[in-house]
Amino acid sequence: MSLASRLVDIHTHIYLPRYCALLRSRTSVPRILTSNRDGKPDDRLLILDHEPSGGRPVGPHYWERDEKIKFMDRHGIDLSVVSTANPWLDFLHPSEAKTLASQLNEDLEQYCADSPQLSPSLKRLYGFGLLPLVPDISITALLETIEQISKLSHLKGIIMGTKGIGKGLDDDALDPVWEALSKAGLVVFLHPHYGVDAKAWGEKDNGHVLPLALGFPFETTIATTRLILSGVFDRHPSLRLLLAHSGGALPQLSSRLASCIDHDPVVASRLAHDARWYLGKLYFDAVAYGPEELGFVSDVIARAGRFEAGASGSTGATVDRKLGSKRMMFGTDHPFFPPLKGTEKWRSVVENLEAIDEVSGWSQEEKEGVRGGNALSLFNLLL
Amino acid sequence: MSLASRLVDIHTHIYLPRYCALLRSRTSVPRILTSNRDGKPDDRLLILDHEPSGGRPVGPHYWERDEKIKFMDRHGIDLSVVSTANPWLDFLHPSEAKTLASQLNEDLEQYCADSPQLSPSLKRLYGFGLLPLVPDISITALLETIEQISKLSHLKGIIMGTKGIGKGLDDDALDPVWEALSKAGLVVFLHPHYGVDAKAWGEKDNGHVLPLALGFPFETTIATTRLILSGVFDRHPSLRLLLAHSGGALPQLSSRLASCIDHDPVVASRLAHDARWYLGKLYFDAVAYGPEELGFVSDVIARAGRFEAGASGSTGATVDRKLGSKRMMFGTDHPFFPPLKGTEKWRSVVENLEAIDEVSGWSQEEKEGVRGGNALSLFNLLL
Repeated sequence: MSLASRLVDIHTHIYLPRYCALLRSRTSVPRILTSNRDGKPDDRLLILDHEPSGGRPVGPHYWERDEKIKFMDRHGIDLSVVSTANPWLDFLHPSEAKTLASQLNEDLEQYCADSPQLSPSLKRLYGFGLLPLVPDISITALLETIEQISKLSHLKGIIMGTKGIGKGLDDDALDPVWEALSKAGLVVFLHPHYGVDAKAWGEKDNGHVLPLALGFPFETTIATTRLILSGVFDRHPSLRLLLAHSGGALPQLSSRLASCIDHDPVVASRLAHDARWYLGKLYFDAVAYGPEELGFVSDVIARAGRFEAGASGSTGATVDRKLGSKRMMFGTDHPFFPPLKGTEKWRSVVENLEAIDEVSGWSQEEKEGVRGGNALSLFNLLL
Repeated sequence: MSLASRLVDIHTHIYLPRYCALLRSRTSVPRILTSNRDGKPDDRLLILDHEPSGGRPVGPHYWERDEKIKFMDRHGIDLSVVSTANPWLDFLHPSEAKTLASQLNEDLEQYCADSPQLSPSLKRLYGFGLLPLVPDISITALLETIEQISKLSHLKGIIMGTKGIGKGLDDDALDPVWEALSKAGLVVFLHPHYGVDAKAWGEKDNGHVLPLALGFPFETTIATTRLILSGVFDRHPSLRLLLAHSGGALPQLSSRLASCIDHDPVVASRLAHDARWYLGKLYFDAVAYGPEELGFVSDVIARAGRFEAGASGSTGATVDRKLGSKRMMFGTDHPFFPPLKGTEKWRSVVENLEAIDEVSGWSQEEKEGVRGGNALSLFNLLL
């Protein structure tokens, strides 16, 4: 099997044992609470106060490497780029966050380095490290952690929430961080975590559906838009940002965004390019559960070049969504969205694989790229 | 010119003179504030406290019918279905809201009835009425207003925000309202109004961009999703809901929504169909400013039938986006997004017309439908 036909999962999470131990030791959220249910120990992850359904049942697939490998084998996944799941270090004081980030980065390096070989030159597991992105952290501490990660050979990037050091990612104070990440060639995986005010979801009990299905993608959309508006991509053109959940709603709202910018005296002329141009500089996971969604995202990436400053804008010609597919890559969101009753494979995973396979206008070559080749290229694993 | 080739604008707003008089009389937002700028009277619409850029400059195109007709003539628009702009009656006490709704409905009827003829049987202007949707209003008052509107022959629907009578549109108390609207055959135009918490936009001054480009579509998406989850479309299958801004982010998040519902013990099995099915029951304006966006929305509408309960789900076959186009219709969002310097036509309008013209996979017939025929059909104006 050639490397180009590998299946690579770039959206897959882990709660490392050291992180779980911390969560188990805590008396307020986020925490793992063990109780007894029907005579068996029952671990529940509580992220929010008033968690729906008494918290999310968690088990070894949240923390054991063997379970990750088993999951990969069951679904034909050759290689995974693993990231700590939210809420990362968000709830810690700066000194604790710094220490734990450093320890978890070492742990994740070991987790990957000791994983089975995929080929003589590749392991089956690589990772996204953590930065201690919490309020009152020093920028120096962040830069030191980037330096640490860049020396850990199995860590290929970092995962990041949307809060930054308290003021969001459009905070000018983060400029040295973007600069250092760009220089180190680390991919930034932007991932949401309950960043939308829960009042929006109303009073009805809809479980986790509204914050997960809508809130998470909105949060990614807002954070990325704020990054665009703050000029981060103009100042750091080599920054590689990978967006969770196919960029949330950003693709569908990007032309409206461009129109609103054009019509706003505060923002018009601030950016080097039309807002749609920046979408062509981003990377998108293919975790959208439908072929029409994926095809559309690839359209939006493919059309971006039309919106470079000085270009003609819309030309009327059909965009070539094959080109857009190069910036998209398969992910599972494991260990979330677990199998539904009676299915051996996880339906959420099968749906995402089928979605890639069914995108109209992508040839076999583009589909294989999205399944793995694009990720191997992004993470410099095409050895 | 056949009726099928008419250009019809279904997303176009008016602040009727009676409503403007109220706004001018107020000392807190929403209000119209007249001051003197460079020796000329300067009217500013202030909707929010701390309005960016000192409020939105407003003029006769916000309130005069002749200006609406001039705008229509300049852009080749034959017929408009006009609605009061946000914030409607949201800020009023129930009795005031009821009285003013009734008066404004009569005013709008007159505004339309006195408009020029388009053909022997059609005027150039039709309207969406207002319901007094404010906290503590009685359901009886709402039903009486629906009754009033249904007797005003130029009013073809109502425009509605997302707050309902205080608890959102998934409030069970509104069931008789949906029932009455369905029976009366009135189209419900769902429109957002600053319903997303402004804290999400951060501390940087980005003018109106973030609430308008992202907040408005998010609000529509949340409200529609909450309607779906509450079973409103299962209970009121003939309800005709038209979504502003092409449904916001709902199309792009609909497969994720379906997956989140499947995986949530609180919600799974509550709905009669997969979430994606309901998108095929909705109507969408074509106010998304890009051809890829519009084509995608039509894909999502066209695929909905696959997700009817008992249907096969995804079939792997390409969807026929031509079918989806039947539920989409041109709009301008006049008088917002005014012309940019040096352009005679409004760029926002031209962009939306070009977007329709450039959708890949729509033939001339579908494009004409979206430009006007679909709206004439939805509003029973194909006489």
